[in-house]
Amino acid sequence: MNGAESLIQTAVDADVEVCFANPGTTEMHVVAALDTVSGMRGVLGLFEGVVTGAADGYGRMSDKPALTLLHLGPGFANGIANLHNARRARTPIVNVIGHQATWQRNFDAPLTSDVEVLAAPMSAWQRTCASSDHISFDTAAAISAAMASHTEGPGQIATLVVPADVQWNEAPSTVETLPKAASHGVSAGHIEDIATLLRIAVESGNAESTTILLGGHGLRQRGLLAASKIAAKTGVKLVCETFAGRMERGPQYPALLRLPYFPEQVQEFLKGTTTLILAGSLEPVSFFGYEHLPARLLPADTVLTELATPTDDVANALEDLAQALDAHELPGARELVLPGIPEGGLTPSSIAQTIAAHLPENAIVVDEGVTSAGGFYPATSAARSHSYLNLTGGAIGWGIPSGLGASIACPDRKVVVLEGDGSGLYTNQGLWSLARENANVVVIVFVNDLYRILQVELTRSGVEDPGAQSLGLTQLDGPPIDWVSLAKGYGLSSTRVHTAPEFGVALERACQEHGPHLIAVQMSADAPGAGP
Amino acid sequence: MNGAESLIQTAVDADVEVCFANPGTTEMHVVAALDTVSGMRGVLGLFEGVVTGAADGYGRMSDKPALTLLHLGPGFANGIANLHNARRARTPIVNVIGHQATWQRNFDAPLTSDVEVLAAPMSAWQRTCASSDHISFDTAAAISAAMASHTEGPGQIATLVVPADVQWNEAPSTVETLPKAASHGVSAGHIEDIATLLRIAVESGNAESTTILLGGHGLRQRGLLAASKIAAKTGVKLVCETFAGRMERGPQYPALLRLPYFPEQVQEFLKGTTTLILAGSLEPVSFFGYEHLPARLLPADTVLTELATPTDDVANALEDLAQALDAHELPGARELVLPGIPEGGLTPSSIAQTIAAHLPENAIVVDEGVTSAGGFYPATSAARSHSYLNLTGGAIGWGIPSGLGASIACPDRKVVVLEGDGSGLYTNQGLWSLARENANVVVIVFVNDLYRILQVELTRSGVEDPGAQSLGLTQLDGPPIDWVSLAKGYGLSSTRVHTAPEFGVALERACQEHGPHLIAVQMSADAPGAGP
Repeated sequence: MNGAESLIQTAVDADVEVCFANPGTTEMHVVAALDTVSGMRGVLGLFEGVVTGAADGYGRMSDKPALTLLHLGPGFANGIANLHNARRARTPIVNVIGHQATWQRNFDAPLTSDVEVLAAPMSAWQRTCASSDHISFDTAAAISAAMASHTEGPGQIATLVVPADVQWNEAPSTVETLPKAASHGVSAGHIEDIATLLRIAVESGNAESTTILLGGHGLRQRGLLAASKIAAKTGVKLVCETFAGRMERGPQYPALLRLPYFPEQVQEFLKGTTTLILAGSLEPVSFFGYEHLPARLLPADTVLTELATPTDDVANALEDLAQALDAHELPGARELVLPGIPEGGLTPSSIAQTIAAHLPENAIVVDEGVTSAGGFYPATSAARSHSYLNLTGGAIGWGIPSGLGASIACPDRKVVVLEGDGSGLYTNQGLWSLARENANVVVIVFVNDLYRILQVELTRSGVEDPGAQSLGLTQLDGPPIDWVSLAKGYGLSSTRVHTAPEFGVALERACQEHGPHLIAVQMSADAPGAGP
Repeated sequence: MNGAESLIQTAVDADVEVCFANPGTTEMHVVAALDTVSGMRGVLGLFEGVVTGAADGYGRMSDKPALTLLHLGPGFANGIANLHNARRARTPIVNVIGHQATWQRNFDAPLTSDVEVLAAPMSAWQRTCASSDHISFDTAAAISAAMASHTEGPGQIATLVVPADVQWNEAPSTVETLPKAASHGVSAGHIEDIATLLRIAVESGNAESTTILLGGHGLRQRGLLAASKIAAKTGVKLVCETFAGRMERGPQYPALLRLPYFPEQVQEFLKGTTTLILAGSLEPVSFFGYEHLPARLLPADTVLTELATPTDDVANALEDLAQALDAHELPGARELVLPGIPEGGLTPSSIAQTIAAHLPENAIVVDEGVTSAGGFYPATSAARSHSYLNLTGGAIGWGIPSGLGASIACPDRKVVVLEGDGSGLYTNQGLWSLARENANVVVIVFVNDLYRILQVELTRSGVEDPGAQSLGLTQLDGPPIDWVSLAKGYGLSSTRVHTAPEFGVALERACQEHGPHLIAVQMSADAPGAGP
């Protein structure tokens, strides 16, 4: 067995099953090993951002890492933006980067660059494999690092650089495994401190002005049900972070308010909060800095405390807290409330209602809809159950790839990608992988021919009347992008819709059929953006 | 004037005229400044790789930097691959990266990442601007650094990170300028040493086994004419580096042999070379490492010497050398030799002949044709004069953007992009910018539905009979990419051709009309790859 085969065998033995790949010359032995070692499915992306975005969506839905297979520094660099989102979502991913042979690298051939430096900002763990003697151990260590905290919890990004000769040299036949890391528990004493704080809040009549800000794995089933019991018992408010890596939604879960996006909205939202308890979330700060607005957004007199950090076992901490509070009663499921299909043109509001009406049970929603999908969250508060994945790091070009990855992880569930036209273009090559894999994904592209968020931001930065160049750099209408032709170019079927009823028909059909489809939603010219 | 306006005014005063941009929220003040300060043309790319690739093509043709305007770490990262090519081509570029406000950055908002670390491997110079008081000086320093060596010579990449508050704060009205750096001359003594070496070679009958390997600015007009005189006088062989950033070609220049790509070919090519003189080039090393082949490719007994490094004033050194050798006679122009139009299907050979026949005088050829365009260089040895730009760093996705940038630099010249289908997909969004800017560019996409170079490399790595996964990760035919639909999606006219005569007609017409056009060249199924 050569080094590449040892790498793949080690990964397969550790239950890693999928390798999203955009290989080059220095990865050919790993590619060949996918045939000589069984158990690893290779999925081709035509661009590295598709590969890393797919690994993010896959990891969020499967709670274990996929491999990515990427080509040296420039190829890896093309995948950085979606690794940034994965890092913020704490998704487990193992990057495998082929490189020049060890004896070749120092001659600075044209493709050589400092990949270790490029990988560092996105990697919680990284290593350059020095010898095929150690490739199995290094691979096992990378997988272990990616699953940093525990089996069913947050992960992180591990990056393994594998020189070509390490791949082709003979490796020991022994395949290494490493034990799963223990989870980070929250101490009983700390749980009791928070329970005491909540009891005092209830006794002093401050329960309603006390908020638990849920994030990370606190937004999965166990965390949500425990939080629901706590809220029922104490009357505290449950809020979710603005951009959740993955949250479960549906009538069986509490209806969480969501922290807004713009800083002045967050300030307004938090006004009167006496205590904010972080449960897998971070202190609310402004996404961007603006003149005359602060970075930290909590009122000065709010008490800030933390039940669990995002890398702790948040669900366990919430369950322990419920136990400490004697909060055993789970509120009954809420009633399913589906809106009627609206008439007329396509606006953020009519889009949201249409999707809410047609979203199938147990769907996975991947939201990179930016300004056009702002209405989705409130409109689906009582819609059918679904997993909801959001753009955690703000690096656009994540939606289509992440939908692909989520579908590879959960082939029996319908994935619905909400995609802005501007953001979708960054990794439009992912449409081809959807077609090739026959992925069960509906991509809904909101076509407004604008970077609308940037026009909003231009106004916020004081430009009342944008000049020709400012308009030129924020408009996509000269010429307009024809998404139906783009989809055809990638072998993907598609439908263009201009009204809410047309959209409803197209979405209903796309959800009933298995396989990929794109719906180009032509937004009404006068449709306002709803904010991300 | 605010900091952003000071930045743009400083650049305009330094004769920087074009800003290739894919802005986000933290660049809005720079965007607005393009309207309030006159003299800077903003060109929008839908993806950052389009922006940096365009800046590369622009810089190679104009010998001065464009600005790129990029969004924080993930946005910048999307531009790294083409910056890698620009770095290898020694193209002058000034990256302007907007960032979180200075007082916002340390709160680690979702989009925050370590952009200074990401930028380091690609930047010869970089700085994070600390205050709007210094933004003009910092901008002038960045431009000066990008033009590192001299006015008409190699450049480098300078990266300036500009926090949002530095953009919006009031800046001094004084605009800074910095003097142009002196060029790096080669001393008279060193020139005389090389001249002596050549005289001895002539006297000892070793002139024909002596090679001058030309690279960098040695391949521009002045360098080529001086080299031509030297070869005429001494009988030494003139060879060009494998991947030239830009070389001038045509009957008025010597017909240079080109160093081949694969290491065993290079070894064969260099066999019997008694002396190799580097003139703006680097010692030949293998692009990738292979088992049983070395990294360094020069025969053990070849004398290696250097007339000028790539950052020296190579043209001047060649002219001085010609002077020292009394080599004043320029050989007459060679005869223009245009091949006939071949019949039949489209192979690397028939493609090359067809392009050679139709290439218009004074065209700019951007070559990212990988295996399909391998025949272009020899077939156009005596074709009409053209500038020839090559993929210097091996990071694919460079051709379409670079063609855009070359066209912005030279709007009156026809740009012909030779593009592989696999490589073209990485930055296919550039097609839209061609349409939007009405750029005078013909994109010829060679459609073989393969990563053929990878299938070649699989074979080279010992895989005789690739398995299903190896084939799956190197074939693009399931489904095939429909380039005519992709072009339509981006608002670009296109033609699909299946035979050499059809190709000739389409190319002739595209070259006669002003503006952008795409030709999808459907390769014959049995067409071999010719090697890059």
